[in-house]
Amino acid sequence: MSTPDCAMAAVSTVTEFDLNGYLAERKPLIEAALEASIPLTYPEVIYESMRYSLLGGGKRLRPILCLASCELAGGTATMALPTACALEMVHTMSLIHDDLPAMDNDDFRRGRPTNHKIYGDDIAILSGDALLAYAFEYVARKTQGVPADRLLEILARLGHAVAATGLVGGQVVDLCSEGKTDVSLETLHFIHTHKTGALLEISVVSGAILAGAPPEMIDHLTRYAKNIGLAFQIIDDVLDITATADQLGKTAGKDLQAQKVTFPSIWGIEESRRQAHVLIDEAKAQLVSYGPAGRPLSALADFVVSRTH
Amino acid sequence: MSTPDCAMAAVSTVTEFDLNGYLAERKPLIEAALEASIPLTYPEVIYESMRYSLLGGGKRLRPILCLASCELAGGTATMALPTACALEMVHTMSLIHDDLPAMDNDDFRRGRPTNHKIYGDDIAILSGDALLAYAFEYVARKTQGVPADRLLEILARLGHAVAATGLVGGQVVDLCSEGKTDVSLETLHFIHTHKTGALLEISVVSGAILAGAPPEMIDHLTRYAKNIGLAFQIIDDVLDITATADQLGKTAGKDLQAQKVTFPSIWGIEESRRQAHVLIDEAKAQLVSYGPAGRPLSALADFVVSRTH
Repeated sequence: MSTPDCAMAAVSTVTEFDLNGYLAERKPLIEAALEASIPLTYPEVIYESMRYSLLGGGKRLRPILCLASCELAGGTATMALPTACALEMVHTMSLIHDDLPAMDNDDFRRGRPTNHKIYGDDIAILSGDALLAYAFEYVARKTQGVPADRLLEILARLGHAVAATGLVGGQVVDLCSEGKTDVSLETLHFIHTHKTGALLEISVVSGAILAGAPPEMIDHLTRYAKNIGLAFQIIDDVLDITATADQLGKTAGKDLQAQKVTFPSIWGIEESRRQAHVLIDEAKAQLVSYGPAGRPLSALADFVVSRTH
Repeated sequence: MSTPDCAMAAVSTVTEFDLNGYLAERKPLIEAALEASIPLTYPEVIYESMRYSLLGGGKRLRPILCLASCELAGGTATMALPTACALEMVHTMSLIHDDLPAMDNDDFRRGRPTNHKIYGDDIAILSGDALLAYAFEYVARKTQGVPADRLLEILARLGHAVAATGLVGGQVVDLCSEGKTDVSLETLHFIHTHKTGALLEISVVSGAILAGAPPEMIDHLTRYAKNIGLAFQIIDDVLDITATADQLGKTAGKDLQAQKVTFPSIWGIEESRRQAHVLIDEAKAQLVSYGPAGRPLSALADFVVSRTH
């Protein structure tokens, strides 16, 4: 686990968990499942486009959280893999559509040309639509050993996390706030709890639901997820200022250029980092009662604030 | 029920079913359910955009088919209403995205400006995404009195019908065929069974699944739906040539203008109509064993070929 490069007064626990080893074991599992999830068939161009963005790297944070949460709740990684893949499909859809000229108009993502730069805007739009629809089918068809009512709950929550009540709602407020210098902290909070937070929350909570976790564990994990989701976004805003395009794999400094109100533009960089660490401590506090079983999620919370891209 | 305006040598049955009365009773039920399905809340613009297209009229053929099929299988309209609304949400999503400048670039739909002409391309893209995701949540959350495994089956099939295996796949081949004069009948068949057929099929079959229909009824209704789906598209192609923009509520003659290969461009108008009627007779033949209970679906099959818009 790498150490955050700023003062961490609020961090009180030190995990001895080997996160690098954990990620080195998990990522290939997820990459293999994603690779197998979309076959290349007629009409090839749409499957190629879906695969281009889905298999184009990335931290795989959402699938990893889902697997970790399922195991914490007594389930298995196998049980959670279809949902984990579906979460990455939905995340990928949001990136493809977000990068379109009609939206953020980004040419690079994860160090490569964006989907529409390769396949055109029309195929990129359809590719996102297909990934979104397929995500639901994939959970429903591919999950094994989980009762139908749990899967139904996951699909309902996944829909909620993506629709105007979630990710889309956050993107809309983000779009409407562009160019405004008087965006309130409340609005900024709405944007991030929806645009990033909603999908991170279902990533964590779905794993627990798959395993049949009791309501109090769902509550703990919901709070854990809300906190890391907001911390994730604060650090994203900080990285947009401090990291290079090479590190991010996408254009850096976009927020400043767009005169966007962000957490660091309100709080400054150091205070933003401190707030992120406070949130991470609160997230980790939700895991205390689970002892060593909570270590992967605890280490993943640290990872969220220590990442450099 | 209006009479088709061409020779119908192949039509052998005459239903005495009052389709106009049936539609006059069904459409308000569906309109009310759609109206209630999307509240107007913060951030209003996205909900307004979703409502603009979802509540902007239309035949509501997919919801009506779903209700009729559910009742044929012994279920109730109430049981099928959430799925019926979800089908219309998905259909609306496909229209909003299809009309975008990056796709078909249409300015009018159902006699009104298209979604992106009112709300901009960015909101139109997000509106489609939100409608698609919400459709899944809506079925999962709002359906009452149906076992979870049936709902899961419906959500899996709905995803399949929209993804690259369905609607999106059809749109992709349609896009790739534009400007080509050597499109084969096989390719045209692929486009339509996917672009229009897949969603019409799940519209019919979902109703039967909700009601717990036995496999042989699902088979009959699948064949019924495949036949009316193809007939629907043949008539759509014919109407693009013969109807006025006023009748269609959208630009007429677009296929000819785009030099698109269509069924009438291969078969001619009269032969296309004849083929559509043959398909409708085959569709109605699937309902024979259900007696009077099959009349609504039988009359709806006739409606598909007799419509003028």
